[in-house]
Amino acid sequence: MRGEPLDAETIMSATEEVLRRHGPEKTTVLDVARLLGVSHGSVYRHFPSKAALREAVIRRWLDRVQEDLAAAIRSPEPAAADRLRGLLTTMFAVKWAKAREDPELFATFRVLAAEHSTASSAHVAFLLAQIRGIVVDGIADGEFAACEPEVITRAIFNATSRFHDPTHAAEWQSPEVEAESATVISLILDGIRTR
Amino acid sequence: MRGEPLDAETIMSATEEVLRRHGPEKTTVLDVARLLGVSHGSVYRHFPSKAALREAVIRRWLDRVQEDLAAAIRSPEPAAADRLRGLLTTMFAVKWAKAREDPELFATFRVLAAEHSTASSAHVAFLLAQIRGIVVDGIADGEFAACEPEVITRAIFNATSRFHDPTHAAEWQSPEVEAESATVISLILDGIRTR
Repeated sequence: MRGEPLDAETIMSATEEVLRRHGPEKTTVLDVARLLGVSHGSVYRHFPSKAALREAVIRRWLDRVQEDLAAAIRSPEPAAADRLRGLLTTMFAVKWAKAREDPELFATFRVLAAEHSTASSAHVAFLLAQIRGIVVDGIADGEFAACEPEVITRAIFNATSRFHDPTHAAEWQSPEVEAESATVISLILDGIRTR
Repeated sequence: MRGEPLDAETIMSATEEVLRRHGPEKTTVLDVARLLGVSHGSVYRHFPSKAALREAVIRRWLDRVQEDLAAAIRSPEPAAADRLRGLLTTMFAVKWAKAREDPELFATFRVLAAEHSTASSAHVAFLLAQIRGIVVDGIADGEFAACEPEVITRAIFNATSRFHDPTHAAEWQSPEVEAESATVISLILDGIRTR
């Protein structure tokens, strides 16, 4: 048994470690309890179910991903088109890096995304809000054609699915993915600019 | 044993039937041979392996999908933008209908697509050629901005992945998919039109 009292953060960190070792399919609450040297009942006192624990771990992991993204876009370019290009480029690069460097937690995220979990929906909402902010600025400046921001934001998100949706992760290893994403971004920017 | 001599077409039709009953994971060459009342050796005389048989069946199935698509776009609209909108709308609708109405063969196609099989690559090449034909006409007419047709064709294909890539099939049941695809098509057309 461990000395210090067991808290939710400690359990989540241990779960990350077990996920990285065994992957999303084989990780059990018992593995997590064993790593911590506690009974699985102690884990269940903090998280009502394995699904709740997994959701909490991925929510915390996505928070860190979003912090990286927010830091990268903190100093905005003056033109909305340049800001949108920067946001999308960074958003894809962060996803590709996570898929490559943290494959087991990415695989867990992918399972949650397929299940439309709360953590994954909140992450989609965060990305949509980032895009929407720039779209609204661009329309206000007259740089982007007048349109319904919600509709065009969703269209930009959908048109770039190949580059950010975890279901496409296997394709992100292609040497062409960077050039192909740049072309799609240019196509989108040409589509929303004022004529 | 059957009366008439066994040919490749008969074996492929029987395989389709078995795939529709058992799905791509559980279908075996023995099931196909049983349905035909022949030994599995007779099947292997026409197809060297289970993978070759599966590939041939999906190639024939994709040929029929492509005939439907070619028939739908036979009478071209005068403007390239209208033709491109028509092609993409039909392309998505045909995929969505196949996923819904022929789920087991669609699941088999999905497996082949993930494996980048010859049949699936040929199908992608067919779709790219359809898009490219209209892009080339649009550039020649001055309706679309001058650009490298190969690059913009691939960008249009990538920007619409969410609506035609079999990995997204689960999302095609959403009531919003039709409206969302129409918005992405409009965004693309605005992106490639001459300014």
